[in-house]
Amino acid sequence: MSSRKPTILFDPFPRNEEMVFDEAVASELAELSNLVTHFGSRAPDELVDDILPEVDIIVGQTAMPKERLERAPNLKAILNVKANWEPNIDYVEAQSRGIYVLSAAPAMAPAVAEACIGYAIALGRRTVEAHDKFRLGKEKYGIAGNRSAYSLFGAKVGLLGFGNLGRALVPLLEPFGCKVSVHDPWLSNAYLQSEGVTPLELDDLLSTSRFLFILAGVTVENEGFVDRARLEQVPEDAAVILASRAEVTDFDALIDLASQGRFRAAIDVFPEEPVPADAPFRSAPNILFTAHLAGGLHFSYAGIRDMMMDDIRQILAGRAPLRMQRAEPLQAALMRSR
Amino acid sequence: MSSRKPTILFDPFPRNEEMVFDEAVASELAELSNLVTHFGSRAPDELVDDILPEVDIIVGQTAMPKERLERAPNLKAILNVKANWEPNIDYVEAQSRGIYVLSAAPAMAPAVAEACIGYAIALGRRTVEAHDKFRLGKEKYGIAGNRSAYSLFGAKVGLLGFGNLGRALVPLLEPFGCKVSVHDPWLSNAYLQSEGVTPLELDDLLSTSRFLFILAGVTVENEGFVDRARLEQVPEDAAVILASRAEVTDFDALIDLASQGRFRAAIDVFPEEPVPADAPFRSAPNILFTAHLAGGLHFSYAGIRDMMMDDIRQILAGRAPLRMQRAEPLQAALMRSR
Amino acid sequence: MSSRKPTILFDPFPRNEEMVFDEAVASELAELSNLVTHFGSRAPDELVDDILPEVDIIVGQTAMPKERLERAPNLKAILNVKANWEPNIDYVEAQSRGIYVLSAAPAMAPAVAEACIGYAIALGRRTVEAHDKFRLGKEKYGIAGNRSAYSLFGAKVGLLGFGNLGRALVPLLEPFGCKVSVHDPWLSNAYLQSEGVTPLELDDLLSTSRFLFILAGVTVENEGFVDRARLEQVPEDAAVILASRAEVTDFDALIDLASQGRFRAAIDVFPEEPVPADAPFRSAPNILFTAHLAGGLHFSYAGIRDMMMDDIRQILAGRAPLRMQRAEPLQAALMRSR
Amino acid sequence: MSSRKPTILFDPFPRNEEMVFDEAVASELAELSNLVTHFGSRAPDELVDDILPEVDIIVGQTAMPKERLERAPNLKAILNVKANWEPNIDYVEAQSRGIYVLSAAPAMAPAVAEACIGYAIALGRRTVEAHDKFRLGKEKYGIAGNRSAYSLFGAKVGLLGFGNLGRALVPLLEPFGCKVSVHDPWLSNAYLQSEGVTPLELDDLLSTSRFLFILAGVTVENEGFVDRARLEQVPEDAAVILASRAEVTDFDALIDLASQGRFRAAIDVFPEEPVPADAPFRSAPNILFTAHLAGGLHFSYAGIRDMMMDDIRQILAGRAPLRMQRAEPLQAALMRSR
Repeated sequence: MSSRKPTILFDPFPRNEEMVFDEAVASELAELSNLVTHFGSRAPDELVDDILPEVDIIVGQTAMPKERLERAPNLKAILNVKANWEPNIDYVEAQSRGIYVLSAAPAMAPAVAEACIGYAIALGRRTVEAHDKFRLGKEKYGIAGNRSAYSLFGAKVGLLGFGNLGRALVPLLEPFGCKVSVHDPWLSNAYLQSEGVTPLELDDLLSTSRFLFILAGVTVENEGFVDRARLEQVPEDAAVILASRAEVTDFDALIDLASQGRFRAAIDVFPEEPVPADAPFRSAPNILFTAHLAGGLHFSYAGIRDMMMDDIRQILAGRAPLRMQRAEPLQAALMRSR
Repeated sequence: MSSRKPTILFDPFPRNEEMVFDEAVASELAELSNLVTHFGSRAPDELVDDILPEVDIIVGQTAMPKERLERAPNLKAILNVKANWEPNIDYVEAQSRGIYVLSAAPAMAPAVAEACIGYAIALGRRTVEAHDKFRLGKEKYGIAGNRSAYSLFGAKVGLLGFGNLGRALVPLLEPFGCKVSVHDPWLSNAYLQSEGVTPLELDDLLSTSRFLFILAGVTVENEGFVDRARLEQVPEDAAVILASRAEVTDFDALIDLASQGRFRAAIDVFPEEPVPADAPFRSAPNILFTAHLAGGLHFSYAGIRDMMMDDIRQILAGRAPLRMQRAEPLQAALMRSR
Repeated sequence: MSSRKPTILFDPFPRNEEMVFDEAVASELAELSNLVTHFGSRAPDELVDDILPEVDIIVGQTAMPKERLERAPNLKAILNVKANWEPNIDYVEAQSRGIYVLSAAPAMAPAVAEACIGYAIALGRRTVEAHDKFRLGKEKYGIAGNRSAYSLFGAKVGLLGFGNLGRALVPLLEPFGCKVSVHDPWLSNAYLQSEGVTPLELDDLLSTSRFLFILAGVTVENEGFVDRARLEQVPEDAAVILASRAEVTDFDALIDLASQGRFRAAIDVFPEEPVPADAPFRSAPNILFTAHLAGGLHFSYAGIRDMMMDDIRQILAGRAPLRMQRAEPLQAALMRSR
Repeated sequence: MSSRKPTILFDPFPRNEEMVFDEAVASELAELSNLVTHFGSRAPDELVDDILPEVDIIVGQTAMPKERLERAPNLKAILNVKANWEPNIDYVEAQSRGIYVLSAAPAMAPAVAEACIGYAIALGRRTVEAHDKFRLGKEKYGIAGNRSAYSLFGAKVGLLGFGNLGRALVPLLEPFGCKVSVHDPWLSNAYLQSEGVTPLELDDLLSTSRFLFILAGVTVENEGFVDRARLEQVPEDAAVILASRAEVTDFDALIDLASQGRFRAAIDVFPEEPVPADAPFRSAPNILFTAHLAGGLHFSYAGIRDMMMDDIRQILAGRAPLRMQRAEPLQAALMRSR
């Protein structure tokens, strides 16, 4: 468009160079723009304040309250590469200024969905226990070793939350012929049906799902809503997979009930990360633990870089971004993030 | 058809009542037929010899050489519920007499395919190691814990053998967008292409697959064909899943190379089962072990019962069976089975 | 395998060179075999009798009663490239001799299924009438012109017969979200459900289908079974597509009811072909006519040649054929063919 | 949320009661809101001006320049039920005020896509000509009648424009195994690839597509861009389907080239509608004409009503709309509409 070279502020913390700024990104951005980068922490105020009058695109979760937006007359887009919203942006003001506020969350979702399928099969089959028994020479073969095994095929599956993670999980479940139900208070029944899933009230979802995937983000409204009473509704010996944010659950109750054998669980996210070395739940039985590993693969970061660069090119060419997800101002402002 | 009540010999060993003769089966067969059952071993010769002049349907892998077939003038079908062929039937003679020889193998395949997806994701993510580290407080989070993790999405996948297992696996891989290649010497390239997979020479398959699924049955021709030299072609750090029969591999070489870290492996079948208590490979690193658990779920046996009863009804009504798989005389006679 | 060059009799009438014997086929077969061909009629008896002692493979619907089979000790396969069975082969005897009797019918089915989708949309939209009105300047626009239009999306679809045509049609209907029901007396309910369609009694199918596809082959048992009384059950203004064999219907009643506006129809097959020049139904309203054009495209013949050559190569290599369909002796003997 | 009853202005012209205001809609809206309706023309200025201070939701394409938006402090959403954008709304200003501007276009797309499949099959098979010949007793049977027939199976398909219509068409093409290429100047190659289609330059698309679907909306930038020179690039005897807006083509050239037999065409939209009674192209050969019938079925209007009501409920409940499509301010302002 104009001959002026655009300015990009690249402030991606907690993402780092390995994740979002490989050589291809670095060289293309350097060619496309006056590029200012800051890694290892959020960009200091002076750096941000300096660049506001010029900046066209911000990559990262830089704090952008209204007064900063007012000082950024050329700002066209904020690209959040962290994959969840923080309350440090005035989303409504950004929208009113025609600034795209975009998230790379969809690039993280496939890897999380893949992990969820892996957790579900491992729980249904009790794969970790079977492996441990084999190591110890205590294995049983065939049906004798599968007395408590069950399958995803034809199973009742419940998704708590139907954002990017749920939408990415559904196609992976499809060939298993599961009956997929969803509870998501932000989404209408008609919408859910149009997506091919069955809307269900929370209590019904909890009490009928053989596989329960907790995929809801945490907002100021839903913290701890999967509490002990609700977890007690889960069918005996069901499989509960927690893959979004620990804060939506009563985490102690989750550990407690799974340990008692009320259900099986896979847990990838924790109220505090890193988990304290001496956290007693580390040895809780009946639970498959991974350390927030579901989404953060090289594969996902390649997806983020791909989406990010594609949309930067679109925006600099005066066209609408296509790949990253747009903030819903009402909802983004409700999200809680560490 | 005729008013004569048909005779069924139900001789399903090594299948037992729990697997293939639940109440619904028992009561329907008792109503449909003069039913003779034997469990816990193969039916003794005298029992078989006695029933041959009358028998309409045999369920099980009863030995049926030519001379027995000659003594069974009413025999319409042999339903193998064990899911692989044995050489104790004269398949050619049975075909020439218009006797359907059927296998329930397709009912086992979905569960095995599901297990394979579970193994593949667990290997790609190193889930068992991640879980063990978490138990010990040695976990790393996010990308730091995923340095060696890789995904099924978009991966090169190789299937060694494309029988029931391979065909059941392909739809589960589809939503991951994998490039699926197959080597199967009994199948033409054009056939494989018509099934949506890419035919590949054995060496190419071995040397290019990030995920290698060994799904071939064992025949008199292919014992041990995945030998050390071939296993050494597997790409560094690939994931090798052995889910059909251990005899197609040089099992010691497989253990050895995986233990050395040349690749990751999941192993569900063994040269000797039960595995000797003191087998040294029980503690081999880099391998996910399960004890022949991939297929034998209640879910699979329900499928077998469903197929079996459906085809018994068809045959007794004078119609062609639909659900179980027909023996290919040329191939069935080549299969080796324990 | 042996060094003896095999003999092939290529006797494909009513198929001709254009259809099944292009240059590639001719040159490959000439190289693979001692090739004897006959076009333009069925091979004369003396030619057949001469070749029987030598022949390995017959391509075509050559009459092969038991006594000819007995004189053909090397015969391994009969490849019917006509796509429906005739009663001129002793199917049971062929099976008992281990001779593959194969049909290219699956290669015709996709084109017929495509045509069926085209007919269904054209009937639902009344496309031919709309076009004719436009030519005459009598068209109406938008909803005014669509008062009687309906869509495949979400429609109740009934398939009468579920052989190759039905199975090829189902995937084309899938993205329309139709509720697909099937009536086929040879197939069990459990089988139909395992194929993802709903089994339905004939009367229910006829009386509830918005789109009714008549796809059944004609046998000695079912001639004329879609008679006037049954056609009168079809819902008012439904769309009836006849794409298999006219003989399964009371053709006069079909014409009569469609002409009266009881339902819309598309008809591709006729009791007598060519249709007599003065057949009064040529001008019957409410019917879309095509002259047995649904299946016989170059595209289909390419598919036949591909399957045929692939299976010839398999058989000559001592392997089982993979692509063409095997005769079900019980059923093949019942088929009626012109 | 608040106890104030919301106000809805329902001004849907050119949509009428039959299309968007059935009994269910009328009664639900009357209950939910102070409902003001106007049918048969755009609502007169005085009516609009009167309601602006109160109105919460406008259904219809009411002119809403900036100065009207300024006078509508409660306005939350404008729901365009006409399915294409007009320049009579200040889209940027609406966005800056957080007003959802929504279109029901996605509800029209499935019906248009279905019609496109019908046109494509009819053109490939020459169904209308075949039918006309049969009427006249001039038909040929089988391959003799199919000399110029071709199939969608495996065909090269080009989509000119990849908005709602293109996205709705792709799943219907999928079971045919087509190679689907797309040209759309607003969309990046990476985006198109992520949607499973192949991006292609305009000239390549035109010159290689056996089936060419013209699905682009008309903007101030692209009027007539499919001109004579470009149409001359279309492969000999290809099938050209025009289903979006005639204005993107040189319509005379399109008629001319199709009439000459350079390619086959189906045309559903015209530069002037109704087409003048004496328009000479009415009798042009080689073209299948319908009178803007592709989208406007009862089925589509049911979809519009469903989406509209679902989003009205969401918005009145303080949640984000889910079903209708959001205006892209940059693009909406470029659209030309009659």
